[in-house]
Amino acid sequence: MSILVLGTVALDTVKTPCGTRSRILGGSAVHFSMSARLFTTVNLVAIVGKDFPQKHIDFLRQKGLILSSLIRSPGKTFQWSGEYAGDLNSALTLSTELGVLLAFRPSVSHAQRRIKNIFLANIDPDLQKHLLGHMHSPQLVALDSMNYWINNKRASLLSLLKKVNIFVANDQEARQLSGETNLVRAAKSLLRFGPQMVLVKKGEHGVLFCGDEFICSLPGYPVEKVVDPTGAGDTFAGGFMGHLARTGKINSSVLKKALAYGTVAASYNIEGFGLKRTALFTRRDLERRLAEFRKSVVF
Amino acid sequence: MSILVLGTVALDTVKTPCGTRSRILGGSAVHFSMSARLFTTVNLVAIVGKDFPQKHIDFLRQKGLILSSLIRSPGKTFQWSGEYAGDLNSALTLSTELGVLLAFRPSVSHAQRRIKNIFLANIDPDLQKHLLGHMHSPQLVALDSMNYWINNKRASLLSLLKKVNIFVANDQEARQLSGETNLVRAAKSLLRFGPQMVLVKKGEHGVLFCGDEFICSLPGYPVEKVVDPTGAGDTFAGGFMGHLARTGKINSSVLKKALAYGTVAASYNIEGFGLKRTALFTRRDLERRLAEFRKSVVF
Repeated sequence: MSILVLGTVALDTVKTPCGTRSRILGGSAVHFSMSARLFTTVNLVAIVGKDFPQKHIDFLRQKGLILSSLIRSPGKTFQWSGEYAGDLNSALTLSTELGVLLAFRPSVSHAQRRIKNIFLANIDPDLQKHLLGHMHSPQLVALDSMNYWINNKRASLLSLLKKVNIFVANDQEARQLSGETNLVRAAKSLLRFGPQMVLVKKGEHGVLFCGDEFICSLPGYPVEKVVDPTGAGDTFAGGFMGHLARTGKINSSVLKKALAYGTVAASYNIEGFGLKRTALFTRRDLERRLAEFRKSVVF
Repeated sequence: MSILVLGTVALDTVKTPCGTRSRILGGSAVHFSMSARLFTTVNLVAIVGKDFPQKHIDFLRQKGLILSSLIRSPGKTFQWSGEYAGDLNSALTLSTELGVLLAFRPSVSHAQRRIKNIFLANIDPDLQKHLLGHMHSPQLVALDSMNYWINNKRASLLSLLKKVNIFVANDQEARQLSGETNLVRAAKSLLRFGPQMVLVKKGEHGVLFCGDEFICSLPGYPVEKVVDPTGAGDTFAGGFMGHLARTGKINSSVLKKALAYGTVAASYNIEGFGLKRTALFTRRDLERRLAEFRKSVVF
């Protein structure tokens, strides 16, 4: 079954110990799509400005994404600029220019409203809510957010959490929103906000998953040369949701495999700037690394 | 095959968000022994002072440890006092009183010199070297250390690393000694100092293992209520070495299972102050949690 993703399409400027890249294609919806496309058809709901290069549109189309709900609007494309240092586990945001995002009202076609699998990637929770209100009968809704919305739109976020199945957060966000320092307790306590499942991303340390009756952890896939972690969490979510959407059912064994797909998808993402690695990787690459990962984890 | 462990026996004073305990039994060799004893006979090489309570000696003997090389000397037992806050991932040392450790020269009986499996728990590297020099034909030697020795006895530590098979370090120590921020590269670079295997402990985030041809990661066992992490790393090492010593051979499958035993052993340790949980846990408890852990990790 296909997936609909709402999120940002961005022009990123990134500085890491490996170098600097200016105005490269990025954004939560784009990174998500790069891995989800390996599993199923991905419908992109996002906005770009008049300055958005046509070559990026061509690229996204060529990767098989459905772009009928990608709005091209007067104004400037969302831009994010950030820097990573040390262990590259967290970004320092240098600047954010919202541009066309300020006037964004996501809209989807009648056909797209029937899509069952929805990923609400990081964007203003009011936009996430708006879109979700238009969907006819969503079956599996996952939500990602960020510290900015936890601080500034907490009420919106909390009311949205009641309506989603899966909440995706990084470790800082999980601690911040729950008020718990222990991550297992943080994840469990987030379940009380509404979602049936909580997925805590821990960067190089992997992931903690918590459902009503099922807790599981996976380590990160060991990557020796981290070039640029931007979008790793969304690439993770794309592999995770992609497997769930394709499988069409949820149980502990499907969930663990989805987490493993997310893990290896993210490991490719961080090996290059922007989409350098994930623009080119194939399902076969993913399966090969999944097999290696399984071999190293299974005891 | 039995194990010989050199390390500290201590009286610990610990403050965590769960409470405070004064002068409870601890030390690197003791925590190691609590889990290693579930696999094989453990010979303890350590020193205590005249103030060391007889009940602790009785306890260690009752747990099956061989105490013939535990010296009781005039002076005070080694004391450590520390505090944990926040996510309990690192201790703030409040005070250290070396006491009898200052004049410690470890010595072992002729029979003990033939023991093949040796764990050099955290203690002055000169003492570790001294003991290792007395062993007849060690087959599997693992070494643990700490930031203090990396800073203050770096040359001793480096010459010792040439003589051991396994170097056990936490993530900070691995980064500090190697000068690499990426943990995979840090571990690989530590291999160049001599050992064939490097084991990086990451607290709640699990463990990274790196051999010449084999890298593997395991997540931590999810623990909801961390009471006191003191000794978790040594308890890990005890489970890990215990399985290797009992199995008597090393390959990737034995190593992964040893890492899993270490992980679940450490998960018990942190659930109570000092030895509260590990004094009582059995091989059966360990196997039960290992089965749960396997179920949650294997995809």
